[in-house]
Amino acid sequence: MIAERNSAASSIGANKTKRTAKVKVVTTIREMEIVIERWRGNRKKIGFVPTMGAFHEGHLSLIREARKTCDRVVASIFVNPLQFGPQEDQEAYPRDLKRDTRLAAQEKVDVLFVPAAKEMYPPDFTAQVKVGDQYIRTLCGKNRPEHFAGVTTVVTKLLNIIRPHKTFLGQKDYQQVLIIQRMVVDLNVGCEIVVLPTIRENDGLAKSSRNSYLSEEERRAAPAIYQALKLAEGMLQVGERNPKDMLEAVTKRLRTESLMDVEYVAAKNAYTLEDVNILAGRILVAIAVRLGKARLIDNIMVDVPSGS
Amino acid sequence: MIAERNSAASSIGANKTKRTAKVKVVTTIREMEIVIERWRGNRKKIGFVPTMGAFHEGHLSLIREARKTCDRVVASIFVNPLQFGPQEDQEAYPRDLKRDTRLAAQEKVDVLFVPAAKEMYPPDFTAQVKVGDQYIRTLCGKNRPEHFAGVTTVVTKLLNIIRPHKTFLGQKDYQQVLIIQRMVVDLNVGCEIVVLPTIRENDGLAKSSRNSYLSEEERRAAPAIYQALKLAEGMLQVGERNPKDMLEAVTKRLRTESLMDVEYVAAKNAYTLEDVNILAGRILVAIAVRLGKARLIDNIMVDVPSGS
Repeated sequence: MIAERNSAASSIGANKTKRTAKVKVVTTIREMEIVIERWRGNRKKIGFVPTMGAFHEGHLSLIREARKTCDRVVASIFVNPLQFGPQEDQEAYPRDLKRDTRLAAQEKVDVLFVPAAKEMYPPDFTAQVKVGDQYIRTLCGKNRPEHFAGVTTVVTKLLNIIRPHKTFLGQKDYQQVLIIQRMVVDLNVGCEIVVLPTIRENDGLAKSSRNSYLSEEERRAAPAIYQALKLAEGMLQVGERNPKDMLEAVTKRLRTESLMDVEYVAAKNAYTLEDVNILAGRILVAIAVRLGKARLIDNIMVDVPSGS
Repeated sequence: MIAERNSAASSIGANKTKRTAKVKVVTTIREMEIVIERWRGNRKKIGFVPTMGAFHEGHLSLIREARKTCDRVVASIFVNPLQFGPQEDQEAYPRDLKRDTRLAAQEKVDVLFVPAAKEMYPPDFTAQVKVGDQYIRTLCGKNRPEHFAGVTTVVTKLLNIIRPHKTFLGQKDYQQVLIIQRMVVDLNVGCEIVVLPTIRENDGLAKSSRNSYLSEEERRAAPAIYQALKLAEGMLQVGERNPKDMLEAVTKRLRTESLMDVEYVAAKNAYTLEDVNILAGRILVAIAVRLGKARLIDNIMVDVPSGS
């Protein structure tokens, strides 16, 4: 089923245009495949932005880059049950398809692909795609053994359906990006992965659909995450090479906010996600915290000269 | 690297033609992708026959069907290390690239794809594709937990590289066929799987590259496998509905050959590979034996009317 949605761009407040923006919403795999077959036959370069919806500026920055560099743009919205654990926020995850459709239209997305969970995972579905435990059993995967296998499985399905030339991902989910890149290389998927910088609020908080869970008080505490990352960056810049000392300082900074429950603070080799004994080379500094009902993550990458 | 191989078709005995048959041999993934990109751009229907080489009439029947129904035919030869256990015959597996190249040329294969293991699995390779344990931990996977994950992983890679419209597989490896079908459906691979009947010697022995391991005496014993399957078929046709009784009779028939070491004899639901309490519906009867150095498998499918 393909539905044409009309939405007056003028209804989005500040952004007043006279044009009526439209986006095609496709809800079945078969219809999506037919659209792709036609585009591929006409040699269109296809850009793909996979999302779980609840669009914010991070998503829109990915869509804009796809729009700029590809002939056709597909954004998908799918809250993937495989990547949520039994205690996690799948049911509560923010959904606003009407608003997302309007924003997609405004950004000139060609197709918004919104498949149903029961078509993506029929009762006899059993397949799984994953990469090695060194990538998926650390950081955000440490206590969620199935999480990243759920991510690579759904991304494999989406890439097979949409067959994009380029897929656009945000650095905020760095581990996810690295895992998808590994999967694409290992399995010869033949799709370029384009990674774009984390989009932040003015006070540094990384944009995330889950920020909507925060109370006012929690929201005031949240920028400490980015401040802690900047502290790490500063320490690396002035010569800190001991990961233990740096991580202790970062953790201490986070704990100045009493509402913040620190899940992990880590410094890793950015290519392999291995622990490092000395802070040198490309270092990923990554944080996950719980703040009220929200689990928030953020990271920065710092290139540390090996010789210094 | 692409090498054009010439081989005089007249050198293959009975099949005398005046034409000099040629087949392009491609050994790198990048070159293969370039060829496929060109064919896809020209809207050619691509047929694919994945093999481990040592071609016999079974392989040739798959190639001929691909040739008949597709514009372009790729056969791959890759003895996939992921699907061999540590105690298995990977090193001994018969290889004869020169003969395979000659036969591929004769059958008008367009490209023989012969990738190197070190390019298929570089040192940092970790990805894995698999389907549910109910398909991979039974029959030929029972004591080889990694075997079928190795199969689906390599087939995923090959399908991503070759992007065929149709892939041709032989029913002799029925469990493998079912698992690949499940994987293709579950992951939306968008490739048709065409299954062709088992090709047999005059005495009923299923053609297999591993038959070359058999001594003369073992070769004389080997047809008992098919005879045991025909016994099962006959019992089903005359109304046997008790799997235990049938499997005992089949096992007894196999054991009349003292050289034969029975690994399993099984009757399963042909779609789910589940055990059945009553022989009804589409039944897979499958056998695996060891005969000297060879591990041989065979199967038949019988449609048993539920009401009878």
